[in-house]
Amino acid sequence: MVADMRTIGLVGGGVIGAGWAARFALAGYDVRIFDPDPEIGRKVDEVLANARRAQARLLGALLPEEGTIDIATSLTDAVARADFIQESLPENEALKQRVLREIEAAARPDVVIASSTSGLLPTRLQSAMAQPDRFVVGHPFNPVYLLPLVEVCGGSATSAATRDIAAALYAACGMQVLHVRVEIDGFIADRLLEALWREALWLVNDGVATTAEIDDAIRYGAGLRWSFMGTFLTYRLAGGEAGMRHFLAQFGPALQLPWTKLVACELTDELTDRIATQSDEQAAGISLRDYERKRDDCLVDVMTALRANDFAAGATVKAHAARLAAAQPARVPGAALLTAQVDTAWIDYNRHMTEWAYLKLFGDTTDVLLAQIGAGPDYVAGGHSFYSAETHLRHLGQARLGETVAVTTQVLGHDAKRLHIFHTMTGAGDAVIATVEQMLIHVDAKAGRAAPMLPGVAAAVARLATDHADLPRPAAAGRNIALPAG
Amino acid sequence: MVADMRTIGLVGGGVIGAGWAARFALAGYDVRIFDPDPEIGRKVDEVLANARRAQARLLGALLPEEGTIDIATSLTDAVARADFIQESLPENEALKQRVLREIEAAARPDVVIASSTSGLLPTRLQSAMAQPDRFVVGHPFNPVYLLPLVEVCGGSATSAATRDIAAALYAACGMQVLHVRVEIDGFIADRLLEALWREALWLVNDGVATTAEIDDAIRYGAGLRWSFMGTFLTYRLAGGEAGMRHFLAQFGPALQLPWTKLVACELTDELTDRIATQSDEQAAGISLRDYERKRDDCLVDVMTALRANDFAAGATVKAHAARLAAAQPARVPGAALLTAQVDTAWIDYNRHMTEWAYLKLFGDTTDVLLAQIGAGPDYVAGGHSFYSAETHLRHLGQARLGETVAVTTQVLGHDAKRLHIFHTMTGAGDAVIATVEQMLIHVDAKAGRAAPMLPGVAAAVARLATDHADLPRPAAAGRNIALPAG
Repeated sequence: MVADMRTIGLVGGGVIGAGWAARFALAGYDVRIFDPDPEIGRKVDEVLANARRAQARLLGALLPEEGTIDIATSLTDAVARADFIQESLPENEALKQRVLREIEAAARPDVVIASSTSGLLPTRLQSAMAQPDRFVVGHPFNPVYLLPLVEVCGGSATSAATRDIAAALYAACGMQVLHVRVEIDGFIADRLLEALWREALWLVNDGVATTAEIDDAIRYGAGLRWSFMGTFLTYRLAGGEAGMRHFLAQFGPALQLPWTKLVACELTDELTDRIATQSDEQAAGISLRDYERKRDDCLVDVMTALRANDFAAGATVKAHAARLAAAQPARVPGAALLTAQVDTAWIDYNRHMTEWAYLKLFGDTTDVLLAQIGAGPDYVAGGHSFYSAETHLRHLGQARLGETVAVTTQVLGHDAKRLHIFHTMTGAGDAVIATVEQMLIHVDAKAGRAAPMLPGVAAAVARLATDHADLPRPAAAGRNIALPAG
Repeated sequence: MVADMRTIGLVGGGVIGAGWAARFALAGYDVRIFDPDPEIGRKVDEVLANARRAQARLLGALLPEEGTIDIATSLTDAVARADFIQESLPENEALKQRVLREIEAAARPDVVIASSTSGLLPTRLQSAMAQPDRFVVGHPFNPVYLLPLVEVCGGSATSAATRDIAAALYAACGMQVLHVRVEIDGFIADRLLEALWREALWLVNDGVATTAEIDDAIRYGAGLRWSFMGTFLTYRLAGGEAGMRHFLAQFGPALQLPWTKLVACELTDELTDRIATQSDEQAAGISLRDYERKRDDCLVDVMTALRANDFAAGATVKAHAARLAAAQPARVPGAALLTAQVDTAWIDYNRHMTEWAYLKLFGDTTDVLLAQIGAGPDYVAGGHSFYSAETHLRHLGQARLGETVAVTTQVLGHDAKRLHIFHTMTGAGDAVIATVEQMLIHVDAKAGRAAPMLPGVAAAVARLATDHADLPRPAAAGRNIALPAG
């Protein structure tokens, strides 16, 4: 979290404002939000429930303690004590200008005021403010609590300090800041989105394709690439060995072809009806919240997939998780070595956690144990390591999606080259879900054979074994696999 | 595979043509490809190597036996014996028209001829052909061997049978067919891509943003959503509880704002230089093939993530995998149930295959075994399943990155509710790398308890056990874990 920032004041509680409330609260900030809508409390609660579920899948036990969300009784009540203010009203310049003046009058004079506008110019929005230097645009994308992108754009009067404060807060919430260096209507992202959107409207208007066909044309093709490479890097690769210059030479002539309408489409009542009707058919009666959860599941899984590749939004999540891990409080001795929330990627077609995922979690637990006895990555880099020689896994229950599981570990025995351990995984209600018995062999990796542990590690193993000497031996230790006799 | 279709003739071996060669060969078809480029053989080999790696990560043991790829000595040599022909020449209408006539003259009269054009009109392309009814556009997206989308668009003379044949072949290769019902320049996808691309060119031209900033504006935001939802469904959700009509009312006025340039940008030498230079900086010296593998890894992982959600491209992959599983040939008793190439994602910090990856491969092998005895996904959908109760894993060697490993399976015993099996994994030189002994319990999933196997499955298990009765019992069967005595 950012130093000296505790309470965020939000003005406007639509899809974007409620999304900000969830993003900030899940990052540990307290939120006060104002919206005249009498339903604001319920709507924020629903968005927060989805956000909490999605962020837990993304970051699990690393999430900090959640901040509070209070519904403010007035604009002044929302912003008066806030350390940062974010406005998320409809895209109406005059409305925003008026409310920004009200916010400014009610807020502390040192506080940054950001606007979520998707394309109005900050220089115009700040023009009527008494302290325009503290105003900046921070443009997020729906769902705000999951998508990393936020465009930060100052107006002519915005100070560098204001931009930096907003960027630092957004980054602390796990977002990816894109500094928009040149002030322009629609900034960068919405210019691109708007161009695609206007063309899509023409295709529906002219009866070329339905809303579902247009979505399919994106999500089965370019959309998959756009999710991690954008458009220029994609086309660079499409240019093949000759690269970007070749691509431009090859497809440049297409710029002269009538491949887009390139004028804005008029949104007539007839076109509005057509789109709304096609969109209803496409949604096939699935409720908004259900679709939002589907969207969030896909987003989390796509970002988690990219995290494994340390690329694009995945690199953002990975770096954020590392920061959160570094900020974790110290563990209580004797507690579980590992806790984890069961992820969709680990679920099989029976809707239970799949077999290899158990061994992954047990293997991760062994890594934590090895780090504790001084045999972590540095030890491995020095040429010694523990290998699993033999593993006996028993399934006694099932871990289900989203369930939090914990693994505790007991040392059963050791000698100079061997470490014999027993892991127990428990789930909800401390029910034992699975156990693993393992024989680890200490090896000299260069020589490629078993070798005695180095003295520091051997001593740590002996201490751990002494600590565990009085624990009862698990009944399943030493078990073999056989059909029942008879 | 499609009945009576065995050999695909390809004309043009650039990024798209070579991608088609890999897509068809990995789906089991034999390919003959012609391109006057003397480097064609090397280029196709390189693309095929990347494609093989990516498809193996996506579909693993389900991939059919790979077809051959032969470099044809002439256009006639490529197409004369082909059962289907795909043209992938540069986007030049006159060139395509001329070569299509040559293809037609050399090909069998009953064969469909498809063009990969990204936006030229099929009615014009087919206009000089003697048999225009057998011409159709099949427009794929780079990388052709991974991205599912293919736009199928006929011209005024194209027969319905031609469209159906092309669509059936593409679907058999795991692609998602989008029928373009109204013939239009750029079809559906490239109109959208072109609108976004033209706007992106303006942003670079006007100095608003660099190629890297524009890519970031996409991949950290809308690109993540586009990868599974497209644009209309995304905006429907952005409309909140009031839905699509509300979204249109709210953001419709933005259509009047100058949020895109909406005219084609002139690709001057200066702009070409700027883009090529920025793109070089963005690529940071990473080679094309390395970037292609990064792209493929991300694409595979994104599609695999979506597969877990049974949504968008993930649903396509899931359905394709199910078809491939159903088409698995009967295996020779004693032959390997699974072979796989060790993937980067499975490698630990010791540079060996990590523990859970072994169990994943053994688990995949068990899935193949279960499919063979009639207990695959359909059986599971019917409410019965086998769960692993106990697993004993021994490591006897190490699997290294890129190594091909094979798993053979022996039935050790069975009763009405249990199946006792032993898997052996071998690597290079048939050295045994690991073994797993498993006790599987047959369950009634709804009742949540062990239950007798249904008759067909029980009979298949009995047959398999009889087949394996004479095999020697593995020495390690029934083993337990213990420190050596003394």
